[in-house]
Amino acid sequence: MRIGRFHHRGEIFYGIVEGDTVLPVADPFQSLEPVSGRQFALPELDLLAPCLPTKAVCVGLNYRDHALELGMALPDEPVLFLKPSTAVIGPGEPIVYPAMSHQVDYEAELAVVIGKKARQVREEEAAGYILGYTCANDVTARDLQKKDGQWTRAKSFDTFLPLGPYIVTGVDPGDREVSLYLNGERKQHSSTSQLIFPVYRLVSFISRIMTLLPGDIILTGTPAGVGPVQPGDTVEVVISGIGRLANPVVKK
Amino acid sequence: MRIGRFHHRGEIFYGIVEGDTVLPVADPFQSLEPVSGRQFALPELDLLAPCLPTKAVCVGLNYRDHALELGMALPDEPVLFLKPSTAVIGPGEPIVYPAMSHQVDYEAELAVVIGKKARQVREEEAAGYILGYTCANDVTARDLQKKDGQWTRAKSFDTFLPLGPYIVTGVDPGDREVSLYLNGERKQHSSTSQLIFPVYRLVSFISRIMTLLPGDIILTGTPAGVGPVQPGDTVEVVISGIGRLANPVVKK
Repeated sequence: MRIGRFHHRGEIFYGIVEGDTVLPVADPFQSLEPVSGRQFALPELDLLAPCLPTKAVCVGLNYRDHALELGMALPDEPVLFLKPSTAVIGPGEPIVYPAMSHQVDYEAELAVVIGKKARQVREEEAAGYILGYTCANDVTARDLQKKDGQWTRAKSFDTFLPLGPYIVTGVDPGDREVSLYLNGERKQHSSTSQLIFPVYRLVSFISRIMTLLPGDIILTGTPAGVGPVQPGDTVEVVISGIGRLANPVVKK
Repeated sequence: MRIGRFHHRGEIFYGIVEGDTVLPVADPFQSLEPVSGRQFALPELDLLAPCLPTKAVCVGLNYRDHALELGMALPDEPVLFLKPSTAVIGPGEPIVYPAMSHQVDYEAELAVVIGKKARQVREEEAAGYILGYTCANDVTARDLQKKDGQWTRAKSFDTFLPLGPYIVTGVDPGDREVSLYLNGERKQHSSTSQLIFPVYRLVSFISRIMTLLPGDIILTGTPAGVGPVQPGDTVEVVISGIGRLANPVVKK
């Protein structure tokens, strides 16, 4: 099932997407039962980011191929950082290249969308707390990341968290192909089977630190092949069975 | 003026505190005009954290005395990190010592409460975007901070952001005395006149990275004298003209 968030004539709502039809739901974190009697044609709606996270918890170096490429030891625990909700944009919305940076990189990632309040969750029960998955681009000002040591400024600019297009339910997060295309050319390509800390382990680990709320997201890390974007570029995150998230890059 | 957030018989509301009287306001980020005809005696209300931030933006090493104490060079730009909203607790609520850490430290800080949406704000106009100030304790799992390199895990545990007691308006943030008492003994004592990056500069700097929303908070950094807490301890942040924030520490 695919769940989107839409804007139509001043109204914002979630809806289940079936082909070219959208069936509104009142609150996908409560029930996936469509609101009776309403439906829309997909092309008449504006597509928004598929959820409004209170926080986006991100995992650093989490792909074996990326760790090997960099010659770095595999971490023994996930390294976490946060991106603010104000960084979220939807499919097609522009990534704004900030004046403060001179190197902005793409990072394709599988994003986990939390379905219900998760606190001290065991790995074996983590699946029950996940609503679904979507594509994310962990846009990063690489120069500021290196300068600051702490990654927060580099990762937190407005528009630096494209999400979407839909939350997809019922997929196995363990074998998704994750790719990034820059102006149509493939730059990143790996599989979530390469994750050092797989999805359910991440949900469990993070939930033992901070309570995860419905709509919160976990970014699971990026594979090898990160690189810079320029204003005028288009970046696309493509994840098998999940979807394609495209965003242009514009000058401030 | 002092603005608190209260719980009373299932209802949560903001109110202006005058002596022992609380005058409810509908939304202090819209108007400080009391709702006519309602008032409460302060002792009959439960005091909550004074706001619900969408994000808490924190500044690393920002006191000259602390930098000198550590023999570190003064940074040329603020170093930022984020604490999640799920870490917020109110006055008197327990700080829960997590099983994952063996060294949990207090850090007394002046917190800025944003009053209205702030984006690309100049330092000279920053005051107009601030509703007021409150006390904060940037509780930190020091061992995990050192292990991870990134500070997020160490700073993000549930209960690791005590805030309060009130948002105080109309004070000069440039000469506040900031103190921390551990079981009644003073451990930190400095003044915001020692801030490397003062309050209005921080608001401007951060607003050029990420949009600040009403109720968001900025933690301005901690002075020299940080140290560990143990279950059974009480930690108090005291800021001149702002208030006193006390929280017990409990074992998970």
